[in-house]
Amino acid sequence: MIALLSSSCSLADKANVVRQIEGAGFRVVVSDLGGQCRVGVVGQGAEKLVALLSDLPGVEDVRPMAAPYPLVSRECHPESTVIKIGKVRIGADRLAVIAGPCAVESREQIITAARYVRDCGGEMLRGGAFKPRTSPYSFQGLEKEGLVLLAEARAETGLPVVTEIVAAEDVDLIVEYADMLQIGARNMQNFRLLKAVGDQPRPVLLKRGLMATMEELLLAAEYIVAAGNPRVVLCERGIRSYEPATRNTLDVAAIPWLKARSHLPVIVDPSHACGVRELVQPLAMAGVAAGADGIIVETHPKPEEALSDREQALSPGDFAALMGQLAAVAAAMGRTCA
Amino acid sequence: MIALLSSSCSLADKANVVRQIEGAGFRVVVSDLGGQCRVGVVGQGAEKLVALLSDLPGVEDVRPMAAPYPLVSRECHPESTVIKIGKVRIGADRLAVIAGPCAVESREQIITAARYVRDCGGEMLRGGAFKPRTSPYSFQGLEKEGLVLLAEARAETGLPVVTEIVAAEDVDLIVEYADMLQIGARNMQNFRLLKAVGDQPRPVLLKRGLMATMEELLLAAEYIVAAGNPRVVLCERGIRSYEPATRNTLDVAAIPWLKARSHLPVIVDPSHACGVRELVQPLAMAGVAAGADGIIVETHPKPEEALSDREQALSPGDFAALMGQLAAVAAAMGRTCA
Amino acid sequence: MIALLSSSCSLADKANVVRQIEGAGFRVVVSDLGGQCRVGVVGQGAEKLVALLSDLPGVEDVRPMAAPYPLVSRECHPESTVIKIGKVRIGADRLAVIAGPCAVESREQIITAARYVRDCGGEMLRGGAFKPRTSPYSFQGLEKEGLVLLAEARAETGLPVVTEIVAAEDVDLIVEYADMLQIGARNMQNFRLLKAVGDQPRPVLLKRGLMATMEELLLAAEYIVAAGNPRVVLCERGIRSYEPATRNTLDVAAIPWLKARSHLPVIVDPSHACGVRELVQPLAMAGVAAGADGIIVETHPKPEEALSDREQALSPGDFAALMGQLAAVAAAMGRTCA
Amino acid sequence: MIALLSSSCSLADKANVVRQIEGAGFRVVVSDLGGQCRVGVVGQGAEKLVALLSDLPGVEDVRPMAAPYPLVSRECHPESTVIKIGKVRIGADRLAVIAGPCAVESREQIITAARYVRDCGGEMLRGGAFKPRTSPYSFQGLEKEGLVLLAEARAETGLPVVTEIVAAEDVDLIVEYADMLQIGARNMQNFRLLKAVGDQPRPVLLKRGLMATMEELLLAAEYIVAAGNPRVVLCERGIRSYEPATRNTLDVAAIPWLKARSHLPVIVDPSHACGVRELVQPLAMAGVAAGADGIIVETHPKPEEALSDREQALSPGDFAALMGQLAAVAAAMGRTCA
Repeated sequence: MIALLSSSCSLADKANVVRQIEGAGFRVVVSDLGGQCRVGVVGQGAEKLVALLSDLPGVEDVRPMAAPYPLVSRECHPESTVIKIGKVRIGADRLAVIAGPCAVESREQIITAARYVRDCGGEMLRGGAFKPRTSPYSFQGLEKEGLVLLAEARAETGLPVVTEIVAAEDVDLIVEYADMLQIGARNMQNFRLLKAVGDQPRPVLLKRGLMATMEELLLAAEYIVAAGNPRVVLCERGIRSYEPATRNTLDVAAIPWLKARSHLPVIVDPSHACGVRELVQPLAMAGVAAGADGIIVETHPKPEEALSDREQALSPGDFAALMGQLAAVAAAMGRTCA
Repeated sequence: MIALLSSSCSLADKANVVRQIEGAGFRVVVSDLGGQCRVGVVGQGAEKLVALLSDLPGVEDVRPMAAPYPLVSRECHPESTVIKIGKVRIGADRLAVIAGPCAVESREQIITAARYVRDCGGEMLRGGAFKPRTSPYSFQGLEKEGLVLLAEARAETGLPVVTEIVAAEDVDLIVEYADMLQIGARNMQNFRLLKAVGDQPRPVLLKRGLMATMEELLLAAEYIVAAGNPRVVLCERGIRSYEPATRNTLDVAAIPWLKARSHLPVIVDPSHACGVRELVQPLAMAGVAAGADGIIVETHPKPEEALSDREQALSPGDFAALMGQLAAVAAAMGRTCA
Repeated sequence: MIALLSSSCSLADKANVVRQIEGAGFRVVVSDLGGQCRVGVVGQGAEKLVALLSDLPGVEDVRPMAAPYPLVSRECHPESTVIKIGKVRIGADRLAVIAGPCAVESREQIITAARYVRDCGGEMLRGGAFKPRTSPYSFQGLEKEGLVLLAEARAETGLPVVTEIVAAEDVDLIVEYADMLQIGARNMQNFRLLKAVGDQPRPVLLKRGLMATMEELLLAAEYIVAAGNPRVVLCERGIRSYEPATRNTLDVAAIPWLKARSHLPVIVDPSHACGVRELVQPLAMAGVAAGADGIIVETHPKPEEALSDREQALSPGDFAALMGQLAAVAAAMGRTCA
Repeated sequence: MIALLSSSCSLADKANVVRQIEGAGFRVVVSDLGGQCRVGVVGQGAEKLVALLSDLPGVEDVRPMAAPYPLVSRECHPESTVIKIGKVRIGADRLAVIAGPCAVESREQIITAARYVRDCGGEMLRGGAFKPRTSPYSFQGLEKEGLVLLAEARAETGLPVVTEIVAAEDVDLIVEYADMLQIGARNMQNFRLLKAVGDQPRPVLLKRGLMATMEELLLAAEYIVAAGNPRVVLCERGIRSYEPATRNTLDVAAIPWLKARSHLPVIVDPSHACGVRELVQPLAMAGVAAGADGIIVETHPKPEEALSDREQALSPGDFAALMGQLAAVAAAMGRTCA
């Protein structure tokens, strides 16, 4: 439910509105964009406050919220959110490019990758330390050692790092080393984990589940924000379809659909969306042309030696080429890149 | 199977290679691109010619064809095909924009549409006269009257017209009026119809079935070319997925995947891909950024009065805005537009 | 719209109701089941007759029809329809078993198959003469010769035959030889073909498209019935999903869902649903346990030599075993089999 | 890799084979079924033992394992596994019927449900205490209080209880109260949780993810077994498809496919597979006819008052009717029921 305050509403009246809602046990979201103050009421049973709020001084109108995800919706937060990570701004004019290997494999590998990512204009480094793998017999990541190496790569290059978290019990450890926590596609509806990353200080990169609807993605984001962390970046990374030629099917329409409904930034992962190197660049271009705020892409100093996702990792040369091509599309979209 | 001729192969030897293959009952595809002459052998049992061909003068190598669609594959036809329709070139540098209403509804409607499509820089007019509808009780199109009106709109504006054909028995009638025949998604595997449009003089716009793999699309195109008509344009128009928020899911990766494997042009239909007006423009942008040779888009002088596809038709103003935005992305891709 | 007649309505009043509806240009469906006479009004704009009908003598109530497929719906035709083909009854207590090879390949093959199908208790013979194939280079069927051989197999065994029709232009030819016409999955929305089989004397076996919703299947059946042919049998044959281990995914829920909404019989095709021999028997069992009125199954005298669908054809021994197992499940469902 | 021992292999030689494999750091799986002893070698790099094993006395043959899930595969464990939970046997001749409400809501509700489930012949009680919900604002379960009530219902009726676990940190708590732990569809690839339930004493009911392949399900089971817990029951509960009329699409073929490849029992959840009451019974029948070892079904004393899954819960009367109908199909399959 949203209460719209009148343009003549006093600060005291506004404070009273907030106090009444909180006093009734609900959460409040306040937005002052464009001279119109909106006060959103979040929680089950909010509709029973209609009469109370309608009668308060300064309240012009009270209306239901359409979206079941009030905190991430634009309904009571119309302005787009920009997530700041060090000097990086995700959701701002400059396209955010996050790149790096699927998994951290060695000091040399991750530092080499970080260097050329930075030199080509990439803004953040990705690399998995805890890897969720379909088979128990596959390489599961270097775990804490991987985190240490990521931190070294950051020290060396200045790039903030994002890495995946797969269990609530790892929060403290990962927060110590990483600048952003990634929730992978397979954990998008691991609700206990969503609550855990909602209760720690780092921003969160939330990937769409490979079987999730767009609404389910927004509800997953709502879990994180409701738990106390408003800094969430959404990521479209391809969904499962019947088409066998690509690993997944990039749902490029998700980018404008999500951005129209949520104030959170949306980026695209062209690597997992297709699973084959030849399609990474066109999918990155498509994502940016559809309005994405950035990309997250897999690159490896020596793709042919990668321990995971070998088929989709860009070589350093491929990555440099991609950055050049992205710049033109970014410019066409009124954005800068690198 | 492909025979690669040596650089010193004489014209007489080349002619002999072709004669031997045809004499054995196979179809021949010849490509001379880049100084390397390839002679493709098409038909079941082609592999039994290996020994014969290997021994012919001028033949350097004989190797299997990987793709089950030899005529539309780049394997023995590496250069991209440009389809000419009057002054229009689909597959050339200039982005081909085909626009118009879902169905032809009246003289005023189609001529009004044709005029603003032309004035905004559109190159071809679309409009359905025979409409395949899910329910027998829905509007099924004006049929012959619709074709006549399309021809009037062409006379008025100079725009070539493309219209859907739904049965082989209509070929002669439609060929009389239209410049290009469209095979709709539901008929992509209506093989008798594919053969029929393969045996008439107009180019064909072949839409991907809503349940078809990309390979099945290329095999459907192969039916048309094998029946004698090499002028086929492929169209990605969204596939069916579990996501309920959009009518279909645009498989934007299909564009570069198809272009890498086939020499035929590939365009994108953003209207059917999403089914909602708000997403048409970002999907058109995404398709062009992924390398599409053009778009086919639904626009109606008064979308709110359209007899079909009302939710996805662009108004004249929306269409003009789209053309402006497309121009920037087209330029970023090294193409012109309008 | 449905008019419910009162129990005291005279035959003259009933005739008048029908006359008024037809006089207004609508189609009438009358059902007298269970002492309650329902008169359905079919056609666009039927709702404008509400006032007229409500005032007629003998009319108790007039209410809207919920389903967009009035002719195949149970709303004004609550009793289940039984389709009679010679001595065969599809939709009756006895489970209808239709079996035979994917394609008619030779006299010996089809007559051998017909004999063991009959001897094991099968009631109808299937076999393709016109084969819709994904590739233009695959075996496309014996065409007319195949029809002649099917007729010979019928003469030899007494089994009625069902065969696929792929184009309206073949109607007269196939009607001459076959007892039932099949619309394959790829043609479920070939609306011109649906109209054509709606205007000929044989019953129709309508397969669900491989990415069609259940409602779309009922609307396709509505096309046939609206064109004049009420004898339609629906067939669930698996839909396309992301699961790569089977050719399709049998949507077994479609059987009870369709039977609850439509009076038409529903059978199941376990062969195409999985594409592998080992799963045909359990899927046939599942279909019958879910309420199917019969099965259509592929069997070949020598599966390893089949020209198409080799992996899913049952051997004569497999087929005999299946019939034995089906009998037990049929009995559990209150049906007989063989 | 599997070593096949000769029929004359001595116990000492057999012990030596096992010792050599374990000494090289691999896990051993031994099966003596049917007079043929198989020794499976599990772990990455097993193939390097080929030469060593081939030369050992008593070894007849060494061959690779085809399946990437050696512990749950029938390759070195051909006999079917029966899971014992108190007096219940899942995977034995008697069909296992697990029933109860979606969520534990109150003492009266769960004890009432347990009583009629037992009286109708159900063997285990289900009920959620920790509920994974799509929205953070939905009822999330009674948590520990729910567990206590489940234990009371067990004490009252003698039915063992199964309940869902959503996070590794809850293992100790749930193990204290429940007889079996359920991994829900959304957590099928929560690998940390799989490892956690692999390292505790209760059997595990593992549900297929709503867009998981069958192979991914077996690999998820492999995680649990590899972590030390061999007592896993697989559950097919419907997958996500494009069909909007049902909540999910039951992949009934999964039952025979899984049972052919894995020695673990497989049960079916008809409630989540369709999401609507009218289809639960036919889907349960279909699952049993396809070879399921049991069912897990939602039933609520007053479905219209249920806090979750209201549309799919069977009333006590519906449940009693289902049990009667299941008995007939179970008998047709050579099983007993209730």
